[in-house]
Amino acid sequence: MTLLAEMMSTLFERRFVPWRDDEYDTRPLPELTADLIGARGEISGLTLARSILDRYATLDDEGKCAFFHHLAQDMGVKPDRVRAAIDAYEAGQTKATYRAFVEATEPPRQELIRRLNQVPGATHALVQMRADLLRLGRDDDALRALDLDFRHLFTSWFNRGFLVLRPISWESPAQILDKIIAYEAVHAIRSWADLRRRVEPSDRRCFAFFHPAMPDEPLIFVQVALTRGVPGSIQGLLAEDREELPGDRADTAVFYSISNCQAGLASISFGNSLIKQVAADLSVELPGLKTFVTLSPLPGFARWLADEGIPNDPEDDAHMRSLAALYLTQAKRTDAQPLDPVARFHLGNGASIHQVHARADISGKGQAQSLGVMVNYLYDLSKVAQNHERFAGAQEIATSGEVRRLAATAEKALSKAEQTRADQVEEEKT
Amino acid sequence: MTLLAEMMSTLFERRFVPWRDDEYDTRPLPELTADLIGARGEISGLTLARSILDRYATLDDEGKCAFFHHLAQDMGVKPDRVRAAIDAYEAGQTKATYRAFVEATEPPRQELIRRLNQVPGATHALVQMRADLLRLGRDDDALRALDLDFRHLFTSWFNRGFLVLRPISWESPAQILDKIIAYEAVHAIRSWADLRRRVEPSDRRCFAFFHPAMPDEPLIFVQVALTRGVPGSIQGLLAEDREELPGDRADTAVFYSISNCQAGLASISFGNSLIKQVAADLSVELPGLKTFVTLSPLPGFARWLADEGIPNDPEDDAHMRSLAALYLTQAKRTDAQPLDPVARFHLGNGASIHQVHARADISGKGQAQSLGVMVNYLYDLSKVAQNHERFAGAQEIATSGEVRRLAATAEKALSKAEQTRADQVEEEKT
Amino acid sequence: MTLLAEMMSTLFERRFVPWRDDEYDTRPLPELTADLIGARGEISGLTLARSILDRYATLDDEGKCAFFHHLAQDMGVKPDRVRAAIDAYEAGQTKATYRAFVEATEPPRQELIRRLNQVPGATHALVQMRADLLRLGRDDDALRALDLDFRHLFTSWFNRGFLVLRPISWESPAQILDKIIAYEAVHAIRSWADLRRRVEPSDRRCFAFFHPAMPDEPLIFVQVALTRGVPGSIQGLLAEDREELPGDRADTAVFYSISNCQAGLASISFGNSLIKQVAADLSVELPGLKTFVTLSPLPGFARWLADEGIPNDPEDDAHMRSLAALYLTQAKRTDAQPLDPVARFHLGNGASIHQVHARADISGKGQAQSLGVMVNYLYDLSKVAQNHERFAGAQEIATSGEVRRLAATAEKALSKAEQTRADQVEEEKT
Amino acid sequence: MTLLAEMMSTLFERRFVPWRDDEYDTRPLPELTADLIGARGEISGLTLARSILDRYATLDDEGKCAFFHHLAQDMGVKPDRVRAAIDAYEAGQTKATYRAFVEATEPPRQELIRRLNQVPGATHALVQMRADLLRLGRDDDALRALDLDFRHLFTSWFNRGFLVLRPISWESPAQILDKIIAYEAVHAIRSWADLRRRVEPSDRRCFAFFHPAMPDEPLIFVQVALTRGVPGSIQGLLAEDREELPGDRADTAVFYSISNCQAGLASISFGNSLIKQVAADLSVELPGLKTFVTLSPLPGFARWLADEGIPNDPEDDAHMRSLAALYLTQAKRTDAQPLDPVARFHLGNGASIHQVHARADISGKGQAQSLGVMVNYLYDLSKVAQNHERFAGAQEIATSGEVRRLAATAEKALSKAEQTRADQVEEEKT
Repeated sequence: MTLLAEMMSTLFERRFVPWRDDEYDTRPLPELTADLIGARGEISGLTLARSILDRYATLDDEGKCAFFHHLAQDMGVKPDRVRAAIDAYEAGQTKATYRAFVEATEPPRQELIRRLNQVPGATHALVQMRADLLRLGRDDDALRALDLDFRHLFTSWFNRGFLVLRPISWESPAQILDKIIAYEAVHAIRSWADLRRRVEPSDRRCFAFFHPAMPDEPLIFVQVALTRGVPGSIQGLLAEDREELPGDRADTAVFYSISNCQAGLASISFGNSLIKQVAADLSVELPGLKTFVTLSPLPGFARWLADEGIPNDPEDDAHMRSLAALYLTQAKRTDAQPLDPVARFHLGNGASIHQVHARADISGKGQAQSLGVMVNYLYDLSKVAQNHERFAGAQEIATSGEVRRLAATAEKALSKAEQTRADQVEEEKT
Repeated sequence: MTLLAEMMSTLFERRFVPWRDDEYDTRPLPELTADLIGARGEISGLTLARSILDRYATLDDEGKCAFFHHLAQDMGVKPDRVRAAIDAYEAGQTKATYRAFVEATEPPRQELIRRLNQVPGATHALVQMRADLLRLGRDDDALRALDLDFRHLFTSWFNRGFLVLRPISWESPAQILDKIIAYEAVHAIRSWADLRRRVEPSDRRCFAFFHPAMPDEPLIFVQVALTRGVPGSIQGLLAEDREELPGDRADTAVFYSISNCQAGLASISFGNSLIKQVAADLSVELPGLKTFVTLSPLPGFARWLADEGIPNDPEDDAHMRSLAALYLTQAKRTDAQPLDPVARFHLGNGASIHQVHARADISGKGQAQSLGVMVNYLYDLSKVAQNHERFAGAQEIATSGEVRRLAATAEKALSKAEQTRADQVEEEKT
Repeated sequence: MTLLAEMMSTLFERRFVPWRDDEYDTRPLPELTADLIGARGEISGLTLARSILDRYATLDDEGKCAFFHHLAQDMGVKPDRVRAAIDAYEAGQTKATYRAFVEATEPPRQELIRRLNQVPGATHALVQMRADLLRLGRDDDALRALDLDFRHLFTSWFNRGFLVLRPISWESPAQILDKIIAYEAVHAIRSWADLRRRVEPSDRRCFAFFHPAMPDEPLIFVQVALTRGVPGSIQGLLAEDREELPGDRADTAVFYSISNCQAGLASISFGNSLIKQVAADLSVELPGLKTFVTLSPLPGFARWLADEGIPNDPEDDAHMRSLAALYLTQAKRTDAQPLDPVARFHLGNGASIHQVHARADISGKGQAQSLGVMVNYLYDLSKVAQNHERFAGAQEIATSGEVRRLAATAEKALSKAEQTRADQVEEEKT
Repeated sequence: MTLLAEMMSTLFERRFVPWRDDEYDTRPLPELTADLIGARGEISGLTLARSILDRYATLDDEGKCAFFHHLAQDMGVKPDRVRAAIDAYEAGQTKATYRAFVEATEPPRQELIRRLNQVPGATHALVQMRADLLRLGRDDDALRALDLDFRHLFTSWFNRGFLVLRPISWESPAQILDKIIAYEAVHAIRSWADLRRRVEPSDRRCFAFFHPAMPDEPLIFVQVALTRGVPGSIQGLLAEDREELPGDRADTAVFYSISNCQAGLASISFGNSLIKQVAADLSVELPGLKTFVTLSPLPGFARWLADEGIPNDPEDDAHMRSLAALYLTQAKRTDAQPLDPVARFHLGNGASIHQVHARADISGKGQAQSLGVMVNYLYDLSKVAQNHERFAGAQEIATSGEVRRLAATAEKALSKAEQTRADQVEEEKT
């Protein structure tokens, strides 16, 4: 355990009272869950909760599904009881009627999950349980509804006010770094030597959010490069032979990778807070930093071009940049949101589209998805609130003038091409 | 800030970004709260939340009442919406209908409180807000109902699994010890010298529960004396000139004082966990410890005797002990729970009534409330679960044989006295 | 133990292997010391060293004197051996002859002290042993010489590079604060409430040097007040009802009290480093700080005036300030060093005499020693090196122009008075 | 920096006052060293010391040699002064004469090294300086003598009482683990995965000594395997597919690798303390541990057999074990110490030769040096003192009965072989 983990963990059970075999409660799980949310649970809760969590951990997927269906069917709300409670409450709004309403509308499984969480280490186990639920319940309406109860509790437990931002460096515990390697989802970390290049040099930083109850598990982390000027190539940024820049000479912080670590915390978003907090922290530590940008892929770009039947020439940089600008600003889902998921995330956070670069990611994945193009989203802390509101309200996308011009160029070129094609068709007809 | 506080606090806002005057949002509170739970709140939440909390802190009681009524009236559930949602859910149990149900039954003020909690330090501010609410809303049904929403969230936030047990010693930060002095509710700590006698000697211990988001604030603490044999006098236990016992020679741990620190956490109980965890920890550290008892007052004893018209002679030790045993085992509330609040707490935790002592607390308070009598509740970890269940189910009170005998003696004496009195009345009639 | 103490202490002996009675070696101390510096000492050193230190702790002053004389007489250098070694070394400067020389000139008691120091906690015990030695050996040449060996080792052990500067605050462990109260030597701290006023407000700071091997013991500490402008009264500075100044609005840091904590570290000076390091730290934390001064007593002022037969009127502020300036700049010891010990310390550190104030310390001690006068020594970090050199070389004392003028005024007044008196004498003669 | 490093380092210079170019003192090194040990050094010491250390770091080997010769020639003791001082001291043993003696016999370079050490981080720089000195001065008598002064100071600075034992685990900072990989000298760690197998499983431990002034640098570390029974093969012990043993089921702790990390701390021994302290710590943590042994190579075995012309058959296990026992117990240097360096170390610590194993290390190095044989040295804490004394005094080597018998067998076989050979020679003659 790290020092922090040690401080944070409740010492008693984990360290001192090893689980004795005779303490296991071997009755069927539904009996245990019934006991845990009943009167017995108040006192024997710890033993019951451990029995349930340990038993769960041994189940195969079929067993887990059965457990989830038990929660979904036997521990849900009772419509009649809800109706009676809301009628009574409306008739007389007292503490008693409101309490009855609150009790009627909270399914017993929420109390069950809270009581399971008493066991040291349970928080992580429950996050993993939800990861199972999301995986196994994808096409099962009852389980998808059940997930809303997990999500409801996790939203309270992982409230932004409870999260701790910690720098990740070459001085961090190996077991944390090991997880950074495993969880990095954008630009794979290939070895410990590679990791070291990402966290040790004076122009590299990494930050993660942690929750005090699972201090050995990063929730989400961001990797930052400190540069002079806004970079336009991920390979250049990560080149092994690049010259290291003293942190205090940098004018730009580049968020080049953000990775979620816990599948069980899907939809409990804190990425937005992370970038802005890191930007604020860095601007205090290094007052020379003036610009905070990402260097991001366009994961849906290649597919969109194909779907739209738009021809492209990866060697023609100017053309690719125009098409990318067009894609980012014009390609929309049916709900009018940007088609590109990364764009949705950063624009939703209040960032603007700052610059696009061709041949910026020449890796296999970069070529396949983004045709080598990358984009800088700009986090101007003085504008994120306004950008966010316009985006949330009028679906207005903030861009730099250059990106706007590039998109216009592409639009013009496309309509011209279309015109040409139409003319040709016309011509052919004649 | 303590080291722990420093680690736990999110560094950004508290330390580096001092609040600038021009950031204050001076619009009326209801506008701010509406914004905070609306779309703007996702991004500008921190600024809004700080504005609301800072504004709240400046309100007088009248202003606070108005704020609470705003929450109670404008941010509650809408019965029609609940009914529509439960009908739709019953008609088709899908994720969408369940989500609509969940959203309809959760009052917006819960989301408001969660968003307020994003601000560093907000958790303690919200606990203090609830303390205000409990104080100001005592006779107001709308506010008492509102409190259930605070309580609902706090139950999740202060889940046992998130609490940290920390020893309090003469090496603890002065500002924590200062709070121990202030919060001690049972046997007042009169000075720093007095405090030192409670925490520094090898036969004295103190433990508190903390929450990571308010690491400078103990939630509840217990004071422990290590002794040979079960003590029968609080003055003897705390005597300045007593001989100090090396911790490893003790056979008994005496919980002689338990104090809640946060009025705003009323009804969020963790006292039960505290005693049992401390008992378990100590038994590992000091294997010589065999007996875990309290030395507790009987705060309702004097009043009960008076109400029942039972005569008593504080000088007659045997008689006083019998009456106390009778009181603890027989005096009940209308709901069949023990009349004595301390008895309710410990018996509810699964303790048993072990021994009663006369002239055990000769302080003014001890004489006035308990007529000098004190009681040891015994925490036998192998029996607490069984004791608790019998108490919760059949209202059966676990006692030692001696306490049973004492109670029987008192009963006999009382019925004899009554008989005598009845005879006298009869006699007088004739 | 504090966290730091815990980390720093070697865990084994102190925590886990309690001293068993049968391990005590009860032979006479000289036998034990002989063993400890002999071959056995390499392996059984810990047990022997503990036996010696524990035995020493039980000795009365007579026993301690005997022990010190044993070290002085039986464990010193052997002149003949030294002479032989230096001759051999001069004849042939090889590793072997130099080793023989080194061994001949180091008295065995130095190795003894080093081996005693292996025991956990021994460093503090040895510091206390030296305090005894200084106290008991004041008039004993052999013991005063022995002290030079302690001092030689302590100079290595307490090398500036090994010391740790730590802020002392209301968050510090109570047991450390308790020592601050006890050791404060300049302006007594009368209670915990008084202490709190010295360390908690935003315009008060306290810093101490610690050694990792005795982390619970401050070595020296300085108390700092943050002010606007240079203060001229200690009572004003410490007034309970003064208005607290936000730290970042201060322009001046006032070192108003420096106290050594360990009598056993006399002549191992680090006060010089402390002030300069604290000044540098504070100027980084609070860039608004422009001036670093002391507010110091003149402990020899009253006595000097009396010895010199200089009349004075404590009510005449201007006159008192002139006399004080004269005293600080002109009164010298036979070795040409300033007569005032506080002046010697600060001028030796490279400070200059900045300002003198009348009625600046109206406490009993302040009136008795300094006739109420206080002085600000100025630490201008850009000038301390130059000031120090001139002071160390040419005994030149750096002063402000005003102090120079004040001294000149006093000088003129005195010579005029003397002239007047001479005239009177002359006159009387005639 | 690690947390510990951060606490331990004096924050000022390292963190906040970056070295400005204009502060460099570019005069010749001998001028700087003269200044540093002179009066100026007391105040400007930090700047001077940094200049010297930074300048030193840029020197090539020739420059370093010149610097060392400067220290050796210009900063040594003056024989005449020593003689005068010892004469004066003998004539009158006062504090003054002893002080003069102490000053005359301590070469100025010791004070120089102490003053260099004021700079944060200097301790490690000085340890590296000594590593240079040992490397460059191997055949230079003046430099070898100079080394004795470094050694003298380091013996004080790295006094056992100042060292901190810290466990090394998978939770340790990566930069510390990186050094463990680099410094492991016995059984090479080939990768991070290999390292993980050495520190993470429940039956593997690692401990290192640290000095508070260089907290990021392990001084020496030991790797421990927890086993049932005494193991006889290093490959078996480290097998990747071995079954992990819960720590509390182990009865034996095997010290299978001890590595010094700092060439500059040669001859400043703490390996002895390390094993015994780790043994004591582990026996407290895991009371089931009864036996503490090493699994050690015999690095001089193959060469000895060759030198002695003793024939051997690596396939004949019994024979190899006998020869190894003979080697360990009988092969001596001219000073009567065991020929084998590892044997000298452990026997000097008070261990005994417990068991020898053939085909115990089948690595290339193990075959080449030790012919595959390994030995267990037994640390019986109740006997180490006695073993050590007998070894130090009478050169008596403690062995188990079996090892004695094995050695006797080998002796008999060898003398029989010699006899046979002699007979053959005789026979041939005839």
